[in-house]
Amino acid sequence: MNLPPKVHLVEVGPRDGLQNEAQALPAAVKIELVQRLQAAGLRHIEVTSYVSPKWVPQMADNHAVMAGLVRQSGVRYAVLVPNLKGLEAALPDRPDEIVVFGSASEAFSQKNINCSVAESIERFAPVVQAARAAGIFVRGAMSCTVGCPYEGEVAPQQVGQLARLMKSIGVQHVGVADTTGVGTPLKVQRAFEATLQHYALHEVSGHFHDTYGQALANTLAALQLGVAQFDASVAGLGGCPYARGASGNVATEDLVYLLHGMGVHTGVDLEALVEAGAYISAALGRPSGSRVARALLARRAAGSA
Amino acid sequence: MNLPPKVHLVEVGPRDGLQNEAQALPAAVKIELVQRLQAAGLRHIEVTSYVSPKWVPQMADNHAVMAGLVRQSGVRYAVLVPNLKGLEAALPDRPDEIVVFGSASEAFSQKNINCSVAESIERFAPVVQAARAAGIFVRGAMSCTVGCPYEGEVAPQQVGQLARLMKSIGVQHVGVADTTGVGTPLKVQRAFEATLQHYALHEVSGHFHDTYGQALANTLAALQLGVAQFDASVAGLGGCPYARGASGNVATEDLVYLLHGMGVHTGVDLEALVEAGAYISAALGRPSGSRVARALLARRAAGSA
Repeated sequence: MNLPPKVHLVEVGPRDGLQNEAQALPAAVKIELVQRLQAAGLRHIEVTSYVSPKWVPQMADNHAVMAGLVRQSGVRYAVLVPNLKGLEAALPDRPDEIVVFGSASEAFSQKNINCSVAESIERFAPVVQAARAAGIFVRGAMSCTVGCPYEGEVAPQQVGQLARLMKSIGVQHVGVADTTGVGTPLKVQRAFEATLQHYALHEVSGHFHDTYGQALANTLAALQLGVAQFDASVAGLGGCPYARGASGNVATEDLVYLLHGMGVHTGVDLEALVEAGAYISAALGRPSGSRVARALLARRAAGSA
Repeated sequence: MNLPPKVHLVEVGPRDGLQNEAQALPAAVKIELVQRLQAAGLRHIEVTSYVSPKWVPQMADNHAVMAGLVRQSGVRYAVLVPNLKGLEAALPDRPDEIVVFGSASEAFSQKNINCSVAESIERFAPVVQAARAAGIFVRGAMSCTVGCPYEGEVAPQQVGQLARLMKSIGVQHVGVADTTGVGTPLKVQRAFEATLQHYALHEVSGHFHDTYGQALANTLAALQLGVAQFDASVAGLGGCPYARGASGNVATEDLVYLLHGMGVHTGVDLEALVEAGAYISAALGRPSGSRVARALLARRAAGSA
């Protein structure tokens, strides 16, 4: 099996994860979480977003969180911005990277942001331009690249089209996201292949939700194409393991376990990562969504580590 | 990606699953479960075991369950037997297949059955002989083929040795089991490669536990070697999804979803399978351990199927 020798992980728990938890946590807890994640060896962390607090109250403390970070050299701090106003709010907080977004599904775009996919990307053009002028790296999150809650299966051509639009406005890297977690390995590979018509291998990443338990199988399929960057969320933040139909991101612990088990280097200390996950799970008052974390903690409790 | 066009599933929920649930269910519920599983298209079902009720009280009703089955032609009914006495007890119940077992780990064998791996297989020789003389197919379950709770990593050579012993006593098919769920794709492939020194591709199957969430990634890796038979347990029976460190078999629903999503034929109706899982989960008074079942049921509840 042909696999990349190392993988670059983007920890999205503090932003994509906590944004989808019902409970808003204090800024101090988020800062401590980022601190623990970077101490565990993560070198790329999505910290917060600059979306209106009317829509995303969980991220209303974006300035406080960014100001409170104890930045470590070599770590890239990313934030999500929905528009130029968001970018302007983010700039004083000196992010290393901004994340813009678009959907591969026309129906999803219309339902969520009330405009076509092409319009949504066009609106991001000045944002990308301004960010790059300020020396900030621009990553694009492409949602619904396999399935859409409104239109069902999404064709690879739609993914290719979105990647082409992202490229046309200057987005430097794109993430292929299976937002609803419905994807399976071959479909995920088709979405990547469509994306790779417009971006090089080192400019693409995978973002899998584990709603149907397929995230690691999909990761393995992407790795076999040579994809070597993946998003993940510590403790599976963003989906409560005890909720029916929980739809969280794949847990970083589970992904790291898979990669290390295959001899793929990540630079992450799994033990320290499990600790960071235990910290944030305790703050949320619920068990971890990571199977690896639950198994390792149970094994430790049983004293047979 | 090279995948087999179809996969033969062995449903082990009624035996391997329910045997590992704390709660013993009435025979009538088990019979109804088997009925629903075969109605969902499963053609190979591990029904019960003939182990002393002192050790496995959950399977004390083996005769009642076997007698109560409404057998369907084309379905293979398997039972686990630990020794000659077990086989003698099983014979009047007319199983189509018996399952014998051995561990690839010397430490596990000693701790669990107090004898060496070689001795344990030798003891099965008369069992295999008698079963085959009675026209019963003999499958061997090889446990701890990747990791062992006592000795840690298990070398592929140990797996090959166990497969060789199984072959030497006339076992017709062997399952490569990751009993503790610690395996990852490349290690699982090494275990299969060692097994394939002694058995043909159509004589081997995979049996993965999802303790560390790796079961479907491991399945994908085995499929890529051409393995086309897998065990799975409806609703993930054998591990409560809400227990810390739950260690159930991979859920049949999750496996079927993976396979169908890649166009691999199983003959199983996923909707009917989810219903069978809902039935047995309700009988146990807990939610399903299958992520696919939880997601599909949540989607149905939300009315956006």
